Amino acid sequence: MSELLDEINRYNDIKKIAPENYSKLAKEIRRFLVKSTSVTGGHLASNLGAVELTMALHLVCDFPNDQIIWDVGHQCYTHKILTGRKEGFATLRQFGGMSGFPNREESECDVFGTGHSSTSIGMALGLAKARDLQNEQKKIFAVIGDGALSGGMAYEALNNAARLKSNLMIVLNDNEMSISKNVGGMSKYLAKIRTDTGYTGLKEDVEKALQKIPMGDALTHRIRNVKDVLKRMLIPGMLFEDMGITYIGPIDGHDIGQMVRAFQNALKLKKAVMIHVVTKKGKGYLPAVENPSAFHGVSPFYVRNGLPKARKGVSYTQIFGESLVELAKKNQKIVAISAAMPDGTGLTNFANTYPDRFSDVGIAEEHAVTYAAGLAAGGIHPVVAVYSTFLQRAYDQILHDVCLNKLPVTFAIDRAGLVGNDGATHQGVFDIAYLSEMPNMTVMAPKNGEELKKMLAFAVSQESPVAVRYPRGDAYCGLEEFDAPIEMGKSEWIRKGKDIVILALGSMVETGYAVAENFEKEGVRVSLVNARFAKPLDEDLLQELKKEHSLIVPMEEGIISGGYASSIMNYYAASPDICVCPVALPDQFIEHGAVSALKDKYQLSAKAVYQKIKEAYEKRNKGRQL
Amino acid sequence: MSELLDEINRYNDIKKIAPENYSKLAKEIRRFLVKSTSVTGGHLASNLGAVELTMALHLVCDFPNDQIIWDVGHQCYTHKILTGRKEGFATLRQFGGMSGFPNREESECDVFGTGHSSTSIGMALGLAKARDLQNEQKKIFAVIGDGALSGGMAYEALNNAARLKSNLMIVLNDNEMSISKNVGGMSKYLAKIRTDTGYTGLKEDVEKALQKIPMGDALTHRIRNVKDVLKRMLIPGMLFEDMGITYIGPIDGHDIGQMVRAFQNALKLKKAVMIHVVTKKGKGYLPAVENPSAFHGVSPFYVRNGLPKARKGVSYTQIFGESLVELAKKNQKIVAISAAMPDGTGLTNFANTYPDRFSDVGIAEEHAVTYAAGLAAGGIHPVVAVYSTFLQRAYDQILHDVCLNKLPVTFAIDRAGLVGNDGATHQGVFDIAYLSEMPNMTVMAPKNGEELKKMLAFAVSQESPVAVRYPRGDAYCGLEEFDAPIEMGKSEWIRKGKDIVILALGSMVETGYAVAENFEKEGVRVSLVNARFAKPLDEDLLQELKKEHSLIVPMEEGIISGGYASSIMNYYAASPDICVCPVALPDQFIEHGAVSALKDKYQLSAKAVYQKIKEAYEKRNKGRQL
Repeated sequence: MSELLDEINRYNDIKKIAPENYSKLAKEIRRFLVKSTSVTGGHLASNLGAVELTMALHLVCDFPNDQIIWDVGHQCYTHKILTGRKEGFATLRQFGGMSGFPNREESECDVFGTGHSSTSIGMALGLAKARDLQNEQKKIFAVIGDGALSGGMAYEALNNAARLKSNLMIVLNDNEMSISKNVGGMSKYLAKIRTDTGYTGLKEDVEKALQKIPMGDALTHRIRNVKDVLKRMLIPGMLFEDMGITYIGPIDGHDIGQMVRAFQNALKLKKAVMIHVVTKKGKGYLPAVENPSAFHGVSPFYVRNGLPKARKGVSYTQIFGESLVELAKKNQKIVAISAAMPDGTGLTNFANTYPDRFSDVGIAEEHAVTYAAGLAAGGIHPVVAVYSTFLQRAYDQILHDVCLNKLPVTFAIDRAGLVGNDGATHQGVFDIAYLSEMPNMTVMAPKNGEELKKMLAFAVSQESPVAVRYPRGDAYCGLEEFDAPIEMGKSEWIRKGKDIVILALGSMVETGYAVAENFEKEGVRVSLVNARFAKPLDEDLLQELKKEHSLIVPMEEGIISGGYASSIMNYYAASPDICVCPVALPDQFIEHGAVSALKDKYQLSAKAVYQKIKEAYEKRNKGRQL
Repeated sequence: MSELLDEINRYNDIKKIAPENYSKLAKEIRRFLVKSTSVTGGHLASNLGAVELTMALHLVCDFPNDQIIWDVGHQCYTHKILTGRKEGFATLRQFGGMSGFPNREESECDVFGTGHSSTSIGMALGLAKARDLQNEQKKIFAVIGDGALSGGMAYEALNNAARLKSNLMIVLNDNEMSISKNVGGMSKYLAKIRTDTGYTGLKEDVEKALQKIPMGDALTHRIRNVKDVLKRMLIPGMLFEDMGITYIGPIDGHDIGQMVRAFQNALKLKKAVMIHVVTKKGKGYLPAVENPSAFHGVSPFYVRNGLPKARKGVSYTQIFGESLVELAKKNQKIVAISAAMPDGTGLTNFANTYPDRFSDVGIAEEHAVTYAAGLAAGGIHPVVAVYSTFLQRAYDQILHDVCLNKLPVTFAIDRAGLVGNDGATHQGVFDIAYLSEMPNMTVMAPKNGEELKKMLAFAVSQESPVAVRYPRGDAYCGLEEFDAPIEMGKSEWIRKGKDIVILALGSMVETGYAVAENFEKEGVRVSLVNARFAKPLDEDLLQELKKEHSLIVPMEEGIISGGYASSIMNYYAASPDICVCPVALPDQFIEHGAVSALKDKYQLSAKAVYQKIKEAYEKRNKGRQL
């Protein structure tokens, strides 16, 4: 059977498809998406929801001149298909393969690499201004989900977009979801627009009726107010109109014709326009419709029932979630905060067990942290659970609101280190560096699942801010025989040797152990320390180490600049007899790919580290003999 | 003449004042504020505007049980007076004296140390939740300016406040200003509420008229919509109501009685309430009313005419502003962006000369940076001029939107290093650290005013992000004879010596020169290098230095963790013969005080550095002799 998809090999090819075949094409795309992500894994539900929307946009746009910014970016799969990247799905999110997000290096139709939320309107506004300054003609679209609209940046951008005197298209892709269910006043407001069928059809009745009002003098000269009122009645989305953004909608996000007409009309307006499009997350694949949160990001699964192909082990996320419920049982002061990711951060059980002590603030990391500062100042101990990469959003709030006021807030930093397939926008590799430069902050990382539990208990017992970072995926359960009590700033000896000492932080303890075993086989007894704290440093130990060691190897799954290894190098800067050989990620963005592939490439694997230490050791000895 | 102010010596003392004396007290407070800031300098216009508002709040509150969060915090002077800190104004903002911002260590009536904008609603929401969880009774107020409302965090907090089931008071102190004139859709909207006198008095007319409408069936069953419309007409602030926040106002912010009544009514509501209070910035002191922007933050001035007592020299800010106008003349691609500080960042002239190429985005640093990313992706070269401390807000936007996409954006970072009297919330000491850990970023700092010009020209010629940081205050104009062309990652030799080399960054070159002169007097010839780049490092030079130097002294006006000195220590970590002696600020928040006093305390003065190097050198030599 011939496929319409076969005719789509390059941007703008969709324009060759006859309108009566649009729904067939949409079906083919959905089938392709389900089949292909069932093999590679990837983002599914949001992409299934945006098929017709993307088609409508591509029918209206002329690529590569026109530009679409995909907010967050994970919903860009149909865009990739329609710009000739269908083949790429075979290697989606794999090392060396196609990225799961827009990527400037991949296609001239990807204007921005995106991955974090709520940036699209600001970016699009910049592109629009650049267009106008250079007298160019191009259509510019920001496609933003209703979830991303809870991020403050989106509002800042809307506030500025109101002043634009040329066209800017803001497509609000409203599926009533972030990854989980949306929250907050804005979300309620959108729901009201969606369901208030009273709006439609009211127009004529009211206009007719108002014509019959006997107008007294007092009222007549205020007619402009009445007009305002009429507008308020007739136009849903008055909130946006009040801010100065023209609102159009709501429109069926699966009706291509309706969307194309709406886009074409809106494009005529010389200002920022919001087109509110209602879509269904997961549309066309029943398991995803029924459980859109689970099908937000998927591992390989069986198409027939949506069940995952591989059984997962116990993740750090699960251990965190369970431990926190336990701790909260004993300590009434503990509350938990999530930024639109109760599932992803393992807080669902906590939310169900202690609904009053749980807050999902929406995609709003800044607020999550400052809200936590308020709670802590009020005598409560908040635990903010956020992915490492998203916590970057709250840098100033952690520094200025929490650390400066030295408030007891625990940061549970999930997906810290290499996250793998999501790639550059999602790698959690900066947190050690940016948290370590903040006064009053404590930064910890556990060697295994058991230690995460202990660190969490330790963190919520402190009177100052503490961050505990742990990786994505299954918890390591080795080395459980090492279980020294957690003490502030104290590391844990794993094995004592001499000359060479590995100071391994968090996930690197497992690696460090393997490296030490390798040396052991060669008869070299290497010391291994579980650092536990990236900050404060265990200065007693570092002083002690100088006695019997000359080569110090700090290891971390994070960027080299300003991280743990950097702190260790700083510590020994005035110690001429000590040579420090750091193992960390280089000063560059790390692409997507399996974590193991990335560790090989960036020399964080046991094999690579062993080799590196060996060379440094030999060089060191050579230097000494001279 | 007896003063009412003499009776105010402790919190709640205001309640002893008879209502008929409120206006006399307000006058006395204003006189006190003008007189006292005319001697010490400080924030004036915003404080003059908030006198009655603060009095009304103190009449309604019971301290220290009840809590007020002052957004930004610089408007808290009357609060300090009314909580018994009048005497402190003699040492306001001086080293060891009273802080110009709320400060938890200063008074139990200061709930939070604040200094950055738009945090109050989130903090107050946290306090409210903490109160409810612990079944406490207390009134909680967030006092936020209309300018701060352009910050995305404020919106994130409002979005979440909509769900609160208990009382939270959000006082919108609307003076139509940030530091400069406000901008954007929200600002326009508030102006509409303020001026739309049509709202008042319309109620009766409309209700009467609507009663006469002949109601057809179609309309009747939609009566609830009509009610909505009525509400929209009768209630200004519907935008906030749409978001789920009860709105009350606008109210005269200089009428204590009206405010107290409004607060008392609003306190009965079991939800978040916004009370919109209109005030006049600078009220009661003509020079400040006429020029509120100039009287936002003042140096000592003559009370009779408002003129500053000391003539200022030429600041880095001015040099930046003038240079940018020059550069923009030659390069059409250059545009400038400010976040509510066109005056403070020196962009007023640029804005007047190139209105189309200038954007003031409001207090919205995140948007400023992402908007710049959009401009850069569209082929324009944006220059974002922000104070170092406020740029912290945009950490993720710089990293994820600009650096990841490797876009040519220039960051002109003013107030970098110690800023002095504003204190801990405003010190610009983190930027070197947080920018250096970002891949693709270049970080520069000029030794004097001339070099700032050159660096700026260099920055706007690059194809990737570049940050240029420079201090508050007068530009250094020494060492102008050293003017090697700027090359990527290359430092500049100032003097060649041996053994000891000072690598001075930016403002520390002046200090380094003085230190070198001191050594010269003792017959020790010390090398001095103007580092120019904190990132990338001048590795050729660093390699070269090893030949004739064993003690390396990197110097920066920034935090030690992750900064320039840290990068230098990292570089030499594997060089056992090199000893690095870093000069930088310690890992702690730096309080307020004159910059010179702070430099003395934290050993960044020439004298302290000289001493430090001497000791390190002697220790080093001793070590060698052993």
